[in-house]
Amino acid sequence: MATMASLFLKTPTPSPSLPKTQKTLFIPPLTFTLPSRPTSKTRLKARVSCGLIEPDGGKLVELFVEESHKDARKGQALGLPSIRLSTIDLQWVHVLSEGWASPLKGFMRESEFLQTLHFNSLRLRDGSVVNMSVPIVLAIDDSQKQRIGQESSVALLDDQNNPIAILKDIEIYKHNKEERIARTWGTTAPGLPYVEETITNAGNWLIGGDLEVIEPVKYNDGLDRFRLSPSELREEFTKRNADAVFAFQLRNPVHNGHALLMTDTRRRLLEMGYKNPILLLHPLGGYTKADDVPLSWRMKQHEKVLEDGVLDPETTVVSIFPSPMHYAGPTEVQWHAKARINAGANFYIVGRDPAGMGHPLEKRDLYDADHGKKVLSMAPGLERLSILPFRVAAYDKTQSKMAFFDPSRPQDFLFISGTKMRTLAKNRENPPDGFMCPGGWQVLVDYYESLTLSENGKVPVPVPA
Amino acid sequence: MATMASLFLKTPTPSPSLPKTQKTLFIPPLTFTLPSRPTSKTRLKARVSCGLIEPDGGKLVELFVEESHKDARKGQALGLPSIRLSTIDLQWVHVLSEGWASPLKGFMRESEFLQTLHFNSLRLRDGSVVNMSVPIVLAIDDSQKQRIGQESSVALLDDQNNPIAILKDIEIYKHNKEERIARTWGTTAPGLPYVEETITNAGNWLIGGDLEVIEPVKYNDGLDRFRLSPSELREEFTKRNADAVFAFQLRNPVHNGHALLMTDTRRRLLEMGYKNPILLLHPLGGYTKADDVPLSWRMKQHEKVLEDGVLDPETTVVSIFPSPMHYAGPTEVQWHAKARINAGANFYIVGRDPAGMGHPLEKRDLYDADHGKKVLSMAPGLERLSILPFRVAAYDKTQSKMAFFDPSRPQDFLFISGTKMRTLAKNRENPPDGFMCPGGWQVLVDYYESLTLSENGKVPVPVPA
Repeated sequence: MATMASLFLKTPTPSPSLPKTQKTLFIPPLTFTLPSRPTSKTRLKARVSCGLIEPDGGKLVELFVEESHKDARKGQALGLPSIRLSTIDLQWVHVLSEGWASPLKGFMRESEFLQTLHFNSLRLRDGSVVNMSVPIVLAIDDSQKQRIGQESSVALLDDQNNPIAILKDIEIYKHNKEERIARTWGTTAPGLPYVEETITNAGNWLIGGDLEVIEPVKYNDGLDRFRLSPSELREEFTKRNADAVFAFQLRNPVHNGHALLMTDTRRRLLEMGYKNPILLLHPLGGYTKADDVPLSWRMKQHEKVLEDGVLDPETTVVSIFPSPMHYAGPTEVQWHAKARINAGANFYIVGRDPAGMGHPLEKRDLYDADHGKKVLSMAPGLERLSILPFRVAAYDKTQSKMAFFDPSRPQDFLFISGTKMRTLAKNRENPPDGFMCPGGWQVLVDYYESLTLSENGKVPVPVPA
Repeated sequence: MATMASLFLKTPTPSPSLPKTQKTLFIPPLTFTLPSRPTSKTRLKARVSCGLIEPDGGKLVELFVEESHKDARKGQALGLPSIRLSTIDLQWVHVLSEGWASPLKGFMRESEFLQTLHFNSLRLRDGSVVNMSVPIVLAIDDSQKQRIGQESSVALLDDQNNPIAILKDIEIYKHNKEERIARTWGTTAPGLPYVEETITNAGNWLIGGDLEVIEPVKYNDGLDRFRLSPSELREEFTKRNADAVFAFQLRNPVHNGHALLMTDTRRRLLEMGYKNPILLLHPLGGYTKADDVPLSWRMKQHEKVLEDGVLDPETTVVSIFPSPMHYAGPTEVQWHAKARINAGANFYIVGRDPAGMGHPLEKRDLYDADHGKKVLSMAPGLERLSILPFRVAAYDKTQSKMAFFDPSRPQDFLFISGTKMRTLAKNRENPPDGFMCPGGWQVLVDYYESLTLSENGKVPVPVPA
């Protein structure tokens, strides 16, 4: 990934290991490796003055322990009952710690959990409402509950048993899995990936409380520098004098239809009178289901696509969104949008069937393809965000390129679904010219080849990081 | 039921068939049988001036066709594609027609349906939010959809094929039953009574639109006069100079614990400074599951309890709430509360596990017993309603009467569950003295005896109506 970093560096960076003058769409985290982070308070002032959309609750939550208190907190953590976190739990700690879920200050207590399940939103003390559609909760089992006893705080450990956070003023309440699943996914059919991964075998209790994060979550996968926090993204948008930020969530390889959509969105925003709309191209970096293309390969593919010059580096910021995927369709798309408000986006591009998947048991999509954008446009707490419905792009055979679908001449267009794209790449076949740049396509082909090699018992081709 | 009416008449009434001077807790519908109803507009003014809580949306919706237009609408209905309504559909037409679901003007279109499923609330054009937690929808099947074709209105027929309403500006959309059930009940387990009755075998489409009701829904069961509309209830509360109205929803026989709670609530409201709090004792009159005591028997039981004088007729209004039961716990209790706002109530008494039931498959309650009151206290659109949690009453053996449970001497109290009560009545046994007045108890015993006789193939004992 060193190649990638050097290719895409644009702004000078305080990290001494990085070259300082090259262009990049990937903004390295400017403060992530600094010994101490500016307080939210001083940052907020800068933000409000630059005119970015306010974070939910008026203030971006950041849950890091100050450098000077770290040792004391580590010591304290050693004396507390502890919970060892799963990979996905850790991703949620990451999400919470940086304020993507602002104004949430930790794993949900029951009142937040219930509001999320029933209303997809939280009412704040001042009566205002923020969106919050997926439960961000931590499950524990009977024996863990018993060990915690009457303690008011617990230590959260990573897989090496290092204390990474303290959860304070805890509340333990029942984990009704069936109800959580039914209300979040609108089905209880077995086979939902996030459910099988995190809920089915989880404990019967949830533990909520306020987080104090001792160590920022790192993945050491060569991509940490591309994981910008909402605060860092806001700084970058401010530096670029953005007067509009439009976010594009993705968890798939980028093809030229996506690129067309993004450049067209910028054109429309300019027509609306904005002077400097900035694109936040924001691949999801947390848990994804087994048949999705893994993050490292997607980032490699994005790199190749960006090399191709279809997106303007001056007006594009590429960063990784650390959230895990629920595949909860209209419920989850609200989370994807809300989190981007906290990162400074005031426009959100929503696709067909966002966060959707096939029904685990029936031969149909789990969600109506239009419900995502409809629900998003009506969702409480998202009134400030402008929703931009995805225009349908398809391969125009008359132009040999991706273009917006023209219903007056349907015979000229070819729809290439995700499934079709994956099948072609698996079979080392090429898509039509103009569907995706050749370098990006080759990454996909390489990825599927690495899977085949792996399945055959050979050493898989590693992704260069 | 003639006995009941004459026993409980209190206010002079314009209906010539009713005696005019006797006391009653049951207010006969004052305008239901009049040839024309006052318009919502003139009624509203009176309401606002008397200080009752405003209906949701600021205006009580009433969907009746004016008398002078009835013949024209009937003629129109005959030329439209028609949908024959089930008993429960008809109950919803009743509910909608009188404005219990204000500001809803008919069966839900998709945008209302989606907001109900995801947010339990509707956002109005002015940006304000009203609560709406259960879908009020009308299902049709493929052949009905085909028959409707491109028509913009349909006629709704009762079981005698009489046109009772027109549904205008219709929208037909997919009925995803699994998602509807999961999001409304928090489970998809087979055996949910309302689901089996109305959803499982229903059509795969929903049809929404604006209702014009030609004929007010009547049941001709001797109880129609006790079915007061929100408008009529508001008139009654105004007439009584109520400065607070506290609603008590029930679908079970009343015992002395309920009575204690209601009189104690009035005492507390007086302490809070209200001068004339009026109780709306509001048994649910629509569909209930097979093992609930039917409405006619419950009304008979309520009559006996009221004869006993435990509630003050001067400060109590008894009426029937026409809604069917969903048994959807925390989701449904919001509907029960919201509908009472529209009837003028600004206080709502919420019990343990409201609208709950046993899990259809597992040996546990479907909902956490505390979630109902918690969800109610946080629900969007119910901020104006004061929620009064039910204090736990139990049989105090030291006093031989129902009393509020005193946790300092638990050994003195006996909890008599609904199941226990039913078992005693079925076995013709008596509960402890002071649990319920003997006349009321006898009604229960008679009811279960009528079931037994019916099961044995004998003629069941009819409830006098």
